[in-house]
Amino acid sequence: MKTTDQIGKFYYFFPQSVALVSVRDNVMPAAWHTPISSQPPLYGILISPKRHTYDLLRGADGFAVNFLPVSRAGFIAQTGRTSGREGSKLERFGAAYKPAQKVPAAILDDSYAAYECEKVAVAEYGDHFLFVGRIVLLHYQEGIVNAAGFADENKVAPTLYFGKDRYLTIDPKTLREIT
Amino acid sequence: MKTTDQIGKFYYFFPQSVALVSVRDNVMPAAWHTPISSQPPLYGILISPKRHTYDLLRGADGFAVNFLPVSRAGFIAQTGRTSGREGSKLERFGAAYKPAQKVPAAILDDSYAAYECEKVAVAEYGDHFLFVGRIVLLHYQEGIVNAAGFADENKVAPTLYFGKDRYLTIDPKTLREIT
Repeated sequence: MKTTDQIGKFYYFFPQSVALVSVRDNVMPAAWHTPISSQPPLYGILISPKRHTYDLLRGADGFAVNFLPVSRAGFIAQTGRTSGREGSKLERFGAAYKPAQKVPAAILDDSYAAYECEKVAVAEYGDHFLFVGRIVLLHYQEGIVNAAGFADENKVAPTLYFGKDRYLTIDPKTLREIT
Repeated sequence: MKTTDQIGKFYYFFPQSVALVSVRDNVMPAAWHTPISSQPPLYGILISPKRHTYDLLRGADGFAVNFLPVSRAGFIAQTGRTSGREGSKLERFGAAYKPAQKVPAAILDDSYAAYECEKVAVAEYGDHFLFVGRIVLLHYQEGIVNAAGFADENKVAPTLYFGKDRYLTIDPKTLREIT
């Protein structure tokens, strides 16, 4: 085991599912996000204040979190390299979407699941801000859910970020139910 | 697309890497965790106040986050089903570890990476508490790192939680570098 206090990019040791965060008609990919609470259902995203999304989030009362399949990784990466300050990314990259129903955000047609979140808290930690949203509406593709009501590993190929511009997905054959 | 305001277990739509959180010689698996800040390096874990780990975290000045390969998913699941209130899980399940160097926590021999974190903030959100740690020491198995210094998808099989007692890992063949 190597041990170091030179922390560097410590977050390249595990894959993170990629969330495409939308505010109004703008989107950006976020690999730093997590469920926060079950009841009430809260979801958190970490956003740098350098981002256009940060400015939009400050002025909006909600946002959406979209999960897209790995086949859309190229599009997702592109949305992270351009700024909404220079015009609509969704239009530029030809991504179809519908306006969210309860918050000012976009639900992408290609998402296999998406959350509409009302902004309920904001906190600054280091070089990022945590935006906490209460999930008020849930969208998902019915085809990806198995008989038990959970995402089916054979029907969805989530986008996982593995650091340094590398994207991959799950291996459904490795699924193990541990009871 | 199905749309519902019955949010239910909304967090079963994507895999989450599993972190084995340790405080003193106690461990528990957490699927809700995320990097928070790059500089300073901050890491966040969400812990229910019902957990023994919560009580320990309240009284400790730090914790560790261990990442174990999917071959250890059975052990990880077991640590989530027993409480440290009933004795040492590490001893019970025969998991070798070393004391962390800078915080009161355990670094498991089977981890492919682990962070030692000084507790810097605590915040309550819904039914969980966010504990924010500053990463002060990083451990990783040298064998898992590629020439560029990043985790090699062929050398590490991270443990991903897919909800409802289901665990799986990545498919290295799907890796795509998007430049």
